[in-house]
Amino acid sequence: MENVLEIAEKIRSMEIRGAGTIARAAAEALKSHAQQFDGTKIKEFNIQMSQTAEILVATRPTAVSLPNAIRMVMGYTGKTVDEARTDLIRRADSFIKSSKDATRRIGAIGSKRIRDGDTIMTHCNSQAALSVIAQAHKDGKDINVIATESRPRLQGHLTIAQLNELGINTSLIVDSAVRYFMKDVDIVVVGADAITANGSVINKIGTSQLALAAHESRTNLIVAAETYKFSPRTLLGEMVEIEERDVLEVMDSEKLSAMLHVSVRNPAFDVTPPSYIDVICTEVGAISPEISYIIISDILGWDLQDMLDEEIKA
Amino acid sequence: MENVLEIAEKIRSMEIRGAGTIARAAAEALKSHAQQFDGTKIKEFNIQMSQTAEILVATRPTAVSLPNAIRMVMGYTGKTVDEARTDLIRRADSFIKSSKDATRRIGAIGSKRIRDGDTIMTHCNSQAALSVIAQAHKDGKDINVIATESRPRLQGHLTIAQLNELGINTSLIVDSAVRYFMKDVDIVVVGADAITANGSVINKIGTSQLALAAHESRTNLIVAAETYKFSPRTLLGEMVEIEERDVLEVMDSEKLSAMLHVSVRNPAFDVTPPSYIDVICTEVGAISPEISYIIISDILGWDLQDMLDEEIKA
Amino acid sequence: MENVLEIAEKIRSMEIRGAGTIARAAAEALKSHAQQFDGTKIKEFNIQMSQTAEILVATRPTAVSLPNAIRMVMGYTGKTVDEARTDLIRRADSFIKSSKDATRRIGAIGSKRIRDGDTIMTHCNSQAALSVIAQAHKDGKDINVIATESRPRLQGHLTIAQLNELGINTSLIVDSAVRYFMKDVDIVVVGADAITANGSVINKIGTSQLALAAHESRTNLIVAAETYKFSPRTLLGEMVEIEERDVLEVMDSEKLSAMLHVSVRNPAFDVTPPSYIDVICTEVGAISPEISYIIISDILGWDLQDMLDEEIKA
Amino acid sequence: MENVLEIAEKIRSMEIRGAGTIARAAAEALKSHAQQFDGTKIKEFNIQMSQTAEILVATRPTAVSLPNAIRMVMGYTGKTVDEARTDLIRRADSFIKSSKDATRRIGAIGSKRIRDGDTIMTHCNSQAALSVIAQAHKDGKDINVIATESRPRLQGHLTIAQLNELGINTSLIVDSAVRYFMKDVDIVVVGADAITANGSVINKIGTSQLALAAHESRTNLIVAAETYKFSPRTLLGEMVEIEERDVLEVMDSEKLSAMLHVSVRNPAFDVTPPSYIDVICTEVGAISPEISYIIISDILGWDLQDMLDEEIKA
Amino acid sequence: MENVLEIAEKIRSMEIRGAGTIARAAAEALKSHAQQFDGTKIKEFNIQMSQTAEILVATRPTAVSLPNAIRMVMGYTGKTVDEARTDLIRRADSFIKSSKDATRRIGAIGSKRIRDGDTIMTHCNSQAALSVIAQAHKDGKDINVIATESRPRLQGHLTIAQLNELGINTSLIVDSAVRYFMKDVDIVVVGADAITANGSVINKIGTSQLALAAHESRTNLIVAAETYKFSPRTLLGEMVEIEERDVLEVMDSEKLSAMLHVSVRNPAFDVTPPSYIDVICTEVGAISPEISYIIISDILGWDLQDMLDEEIKA
Amino acid sequence: MENVLEIAEKIRSMEIRGAGTIARAAAEALKSHAQQFDGTKIKEFNIQMSQTAEILVATRPTAVSLPNAIRMVMGYTGKTVDEARTDLIRRADSFIKSSKDATRRIGAIGSKRIRDGDTIMTHCNSQAALSVIAQAHKDGKDINVIATESRPRLQGHLTIAQLNELGINTSLIVDSAVRYFMKDVDIVVVGADAITANGSVINKIGTSQLALAAHESRTNLIVAAETYKFSPRTLLGEMVEIEERDVLEVMDSEKLSAMLHVSVRNPAFDVTPPSYIDVICTEVGAISPEISYIIISDILGWDLQDMLDEEIKA
Repeated sequence: MENVLEIAEKIRSMEIRGAGTIARAAAEALKSHAQQFDGTKIKEFNIQMSQTAEILVATRPTAVSLPNAIRMVMGYTGKTVDEARTDLIRRADSFIKSSKDATRRIGAIGSKRIRDGDTIMTHCNSQAALSVIAQAHKDGKDINVIATESRPRLQGHLTIAQLNELGINTSLIVDSAVRYFMKDVDIVVVGADAITANGSVINKIGTSQLALAAHESRTNLIVAAETYKFSPRTLLGEMVEIEERDVLEVMDSEKLSAMLHVSVRNPAFDVTPPSYIDVICTEVGAISPEISYIIISDILGWDLQDMLDEEIKA
Repeated sequence: MENVLEIAEKIRSMEIRGAGTIARAAAEALKSHAQQFDGTKIKEFNIQMSQTAEILVATRPTAVSLPNAIRMVMGYTGKTVDEARTDLIRRADSFIKSSKDATRRIGAIGSKRIRDGDTIMTHCNSQAALSVIAQAHKDGKDINVIATESRPRLQGHLTIAQLNELGINTSLIVDSAVRYFMKDVDIVVVGADAITANGSVINKIGTSQLALAAHESRTNLIVAAETYKFSPRTLLGEMVEIEERDVLEVMDSEKLSAMLHVSVRNPAFDVTPPSYIDVICTEVGAISPEISYIIISDILGWDLQDMLDEEIKA
Repeated sequence: MENVLEIAEKIRSMEIRGAGTIARAAAEALKSHAQQFDGTKIKEFNIQMSQTAEILVATRPTAVSLPNAIRMVMGYTGKTVDEARTDLIRRADSFIKSSKDATRRIGAIGSKRIRDGDTIMTHCNSQAALSVIAQAHKDGKDINVIATESRPRLQGHLTIAQLNELGINTSLIVDSAVRYFMKDVDIVVVGADAITANGSVINKIGTSQLALAAHESRTNLIVAAETYKFSPRTLLGEMVEIEERDVLEVMDSEKLSAMLHVSVRNPAFDVTPPSYIDVICTEVGAISPEISYIIISDILGWDLQDMLDEEIKA
Repeated sequence: MENVLEIAEKIRSMEIRGAGTIARAAAEALKSHAQQFDGTKIKEFNIQMSQTAEILVATRPTAVSLPNAIRMVMGYTGKTVDEARTDLIRRADSFIKSSKDATRRIGAIGSKRIRDGDTIMTHCNSQAALSVIAQAHKDGKDINVIATESRPRLQGHLTIAQLNELGINTSLIVDSAVRYFMKDVDIVVVGADAITANGSVINKIGTSQLALAAHESRTNLIVAAETYKFSPRTLLGEMVEIEERDVLEVMDSEKLSAMLHVSVRNPAFDVTPPSYIDVICTEVGAISPEISYIIISDILGWDLQDMLDEEIKA
Repeated sequence: MENVLEIAEKIRSMEIRGAGTIARAAAEALKSHAQQFDGTKIKEFNIQMSQTAEILVATRPTAVSLPNAIRMVMGYTGKTVDEARTDLIRRADSFIKSSKDATRRIGAIGSKRIRDGDTIMTHCNSQAALSVIAQAHKDGKDINVIATESRPRLQGHLTIAQLNELGINTSLIVDSAVRYFMKDVDIVVVGADAITANGSVINKIGTSQLALAAHESRTNLIVAAETYKFSPRTLLGEMVEIEERDVLEVMDSEKLSAMLHVSVRNPAFDVTPPSYIDVICTEVGAISPEISYIIISDILGWDLQDMLDEEIKA
Repeated sequence: MENVLEIAEKIRSMEIRGAGTIARAAAEALKSHAQQFDGTKIKEFNIQMSQTAEILVATRPTAVSLPNAIRMVMGYTGKTVDEARTDLIRRADSFIKSSKDATRRIGAIGSKRIRDGDTIMTHCNSQAALSVIAQAHKDGKDINVIATESRPRLQGHLTIAQLNELGINTSLIVDSAVRYFMKDVDIVVVGADAITANGSVINKIGTSQLALAAHESRTNLIVAAETYKFSPRTLLGEMVEIEERDVLEVMDSEKLSAMLHVSVRNPAFDVTPPSYIDVICTEVGAISPEISYIIISDILGWDLQDMLDEEIKA
């Protein structure tokens, strides 16, 4: 149990962070706990594993990847402890492997949408989106990238550094210049923090403006996202909470506090509606945003009825 | 002539800057030159004044307010030097006065569009737009303002300081958050750097994104602009040149030069189409963008046929 | 003066009502007062006429047709009382005549937009709109009309009665069915209560829904309106106030007062933006809504600069 | 059999009415008939049950909930009469229970989309929509409702009475005022009479106008609907027939008959396209309208291939 | 008079054709008739000139350029025959000269909208549109053209031949491929057969499809048109009649007549709404389509009130 | 094997062509090869069948129907050669039968969307689309068809001949006249060459223009397509390649080669986005374009995970 609590603490304290890293750590914790279990009663095993899962989920209640990872691993079956343990370990390993592999696969799938000569716009710093762009470049396509700086935290600076490393010609622009350059853009590629059951994409603040400007000029936008970004709880009607971050990201606190009538609003994400998205590229295929439901039920394996029953009871 | 050359130099070197200040300085220069003229031949007077006008126009060939000011003053008539001088001085004084008064008048006109309880979004730092907001506040309307920071030069910081001074509740947001907050906005108020004959508004980069997001959510956008912002040359088909400014405004040059494949694009303005604009509030009334032609011909007094003849010849 | 005060009182008490009737009564009052004037000093005449005009304008400060009528008549010139009186009377007679004639002229102009076989949708009960429809019928065109009932006051019942009288096949529908039937409609014809300087049309609540549904299905909408419906004060930025009428029009007061948490909102008009209007048919021609400014300045003769000066002073 | 025929007659005569009530009555009838069956041959049992099902379906051929209920119950399996009967009864009970529970579940799911401070617009009188609103209120959210009167039958009066009972602040408006108030609305919640395989929503006349006006101002619309409202036959291409109801609902017959050229058109429903719908909240989750197909095949259990074969044969 | 009748006959028989050629021929005819007039009474002169004008207008009642030319010339003034004749001749010469010069001027104005590197789409074979393209090429801009073949008469073949002659790289496409290539187009340039008072453009069938596809992908469309294409009669509400041409242009008559149930519809023009047009480039400037009214009244000199009076009488 | 090679050659040389014919020939070839197999080892049988399948797929790598047919047949199971062969033959026969029957079934499904009195627009020459129209006519509905000529190959001439044969009133129009006539159209019916996983429809060049014009005027468009038109590879992100055909289809080569600066672009297809499509009518039902994924996985039986694994490896 020590191991589990340690990992749980690291997730809680954000020592472990990033949707994929969190998810794999949780799978690892479950696996480790199953290995350490030295009882022989399957009932006991099940109870302990459930408790462990609950501890892990509770560390970051709003993270989308965490419950997805746990659901994947906890779907084990077995009549004996050995059977159950073996299946659980297999599932944990498989999840970890496929999760690690997901970004590469998304690159392989998404890059087919990039044509030779394309100018691509991207926003913030998404590894899945960069995987798409990098793969197109590796495939010998002559591409240019326009990257936004992505205030307030300027993740665009990470993006241009990575693209520079890959030898891809890139222009950096301020976030306000998105519509100005959109007429020259052939395709927009962005990542996702979470995807809802009806296909809305929650991503870094500003994404929905790119999407709107792309839609206005008939430019396709693709979202690159691992399946563990799809939020099962949105099937229950829940909306993804948009966190507001520290105002210091936007403005010096001294200056701010000197102005009595001024405050700073700093939402971290916004919501892009499915009608502005051409396709979501996941590691299991390029899909319409409208069928996100199928990812949640068929790929992630959530049983909506169970969730509902639990929900209504609670 | 010294005076004229001095003023011309100051405009050229940008010691004198800002559309209104430039325009008034040019009018002042013409007036001063007329006062100094000590000949008696009207022909001579006309020639000298024309030369002076040409010198002034040449200082900043792309400034819209300069030719407008000069045209206003140079419309003088008179059969003798005295008559001509008197009329010229009257016109110069009248232009200077009405130009100075324009911002206040725009406030009086535009503020009628603000209703009690409104949330107003603004972009960059336009004195005309702020005049509209300030007047609504003075009229006792309970208003809130959302101001963008307006990267790269963060003119939004000037805006929030001015609004704070006036005691108006204001939120500062990053430019990427425009669409996120648009659903809560009742009206958008922005300024203009130039307005074309068919009603397009050239303004600080990002304005057209506000306009697009406003249009998407059925929020009215008003442009506050003095009549000297209307560009007569666009009647001849000319497009307003969008200047790209120093990349250092966007990114540290050392970092940038270390990345071989990365460049910075930094356009200063963008173009908002008339279909996204509800009304342009000028000091001579609230008009449809589509009738900008009338401002140029009837208010600014440009004779299109003359311009064309000159143009075609040249 | 008795006559003027009497008419003023009748306008105030709404004994005289309807935009056209009010306008003509005011013109009549001015004419009558000019005829009764028995002084010889032009200055005295001018002062008295101005006072009379002010009295009349004050009777219904929000009526658009009243200041338009008075401006038309008060534009008289003359160096002597006789000259001035003659001109004033000529102007009053001309206004009254052209105002009376306007509906017929609008019919002649607007009906050219109706093609044989057209299905026309209309809303509320506008004499100008009906004049368009009636003229098309008189011209032998085979037309059908779909008329909304126009809750809460069911003016649609007046409309169907008038159309029945004319022998025009008409279907009555509830206001909610507008979009349902729009696919079968060839053209929408409505009236106006007021038109703003930037071409927005203020008309019976529900008009903007017809316009939206027409726009969605690429169906043209024409507005039939006399020029005295154009509001000069909107050039100063002013918005047309939307009056909320008695809740009893919507619901029985006893029932309503029994429900503590329920209230009724009953706005009489809504605002249709110019982008949803194909053409405004006035008695002086079929114009783009965007050039309403020209009607106000060139046809109605308002001097914007004067209005502004007065406004800013006040 | 008496019981079945009695229920069938009550459905036919509309003594039993309302989508949910009809559906549950049919399930009850099947259950009752299975209980009364006193044979021992499974073949005989199956034949009798099929005949009963056909009788019930025939009572209201256009009701969507009826075939859905019967399909649910008739999906029983069993090799002996006892097995079959037990399964059928279990299915009938389960359908009845879940159908009764559906409205509450929809409230639990849909209310998560309502935020504190929201203004909600609704149309007509849908128990599912009201369940969403009531639950949000119970959850302590401060909400306001705008309810249309919903001519011609004024079901809005029922709605405001129910909302008043719950202590929710509500404004009643005429149907024509929908677009006028839409700018102040945060979310629209409506019910459904039927939902097609491609996600179109058939609901009370006027619903599609709310949806259009909501779409125009970027306001989300959610549909609250039990799964038995989804129409399996639309998968075969069939369109939902829009019934036209008695003209007396709209106008006094005496008045009407006096006008030779006037008729009344009174369609009861209209069709809202999926692109105007954010999400459909059912008792089994909040889904995209585009995946209605999945509800019909996976939740309601229709075998499209069977339906097609039968259809093509017939 | 012989000369006039001869010219009239040639216009009627379409020996003289093309909007510009017809217009200049009519001006020439009036001039020639004035020169031949050998009376001395101004009244007589006026009567004869009016009759001549009527004869000319009657030759092609639907041609827009004809009444425009005649109005221009017939605006002469003079108290004596000599004065009148001199003025008439001056006006005729001026019209002929400016009409001949118009295409070149339009090229000078419109070409400023073309940027170096632009891909331009055009439709049919408009000399004004080609003047814009040719001038941009002459100015050293590197441009590509995509030209539609323009069924049924394949005027695109003339266009590509002219562009080839000029050395401009051109691709020919079928009319159905317009939307396919639109994403690569920077600007669309087309001509006009007629322009209405509210800014609609009547041009070769297919133009409105280019405009729609351009609008969908935020591509600007400019119309190149001489001022004599603006139709004064549309101010009276009149719509421009869309002629249907010989079916043989579309299909072999033998084949067609063998198919009893098949007919051919062959409209020559369609109507592009002003909201799809960025700017109309005329020889007197680049204007918003919405202010076409100003061209008709201020440039072409039509007195709407006169037209109306005549119209209403007739 | 001879038989297989022969068929393969005929497909390659396009002696066998048309999506349905190719698909059935491939199924036939597999069946024939299975029948000829005279070994007894199931492993051997499986290897030979796989090789045969590969040969067939390679004949036309871009044809969508070919891999779909082969996947259907190759889904056989069996532990012995006899079992496997029997299942394979059953599958081949079933595919051939259902493929032949598909057009009729599509007609039965799609025709329900046609109402009595409808005017239908169609493009090119699709047997599935014509089946829909023909069935509506057979059902006694009074319909009219507008058919485009469909340059460059004028397949519209085939369409009007077939419709004439059926006695259906039809108008032929040039492709440029689509928007002109769209206002009179009640429904658009087209076929498909391929359908992607996210619901885009690849069809004859010009289809997307019909769709755009239909969307602009709120006219529904339905696509009639057999399920073997759905492209499984698009799930992997792949885009459907748009072939450019011989320029001679568009223009005489002699004329063309005489113009140095002119070339012809002749794409055969274009892409219609799902948001412009109301419903896709397949032989297994009328579905939303957005759920094409379900057709590919559930109906065509592709295992995306397998495809991906293979893909990533390759």
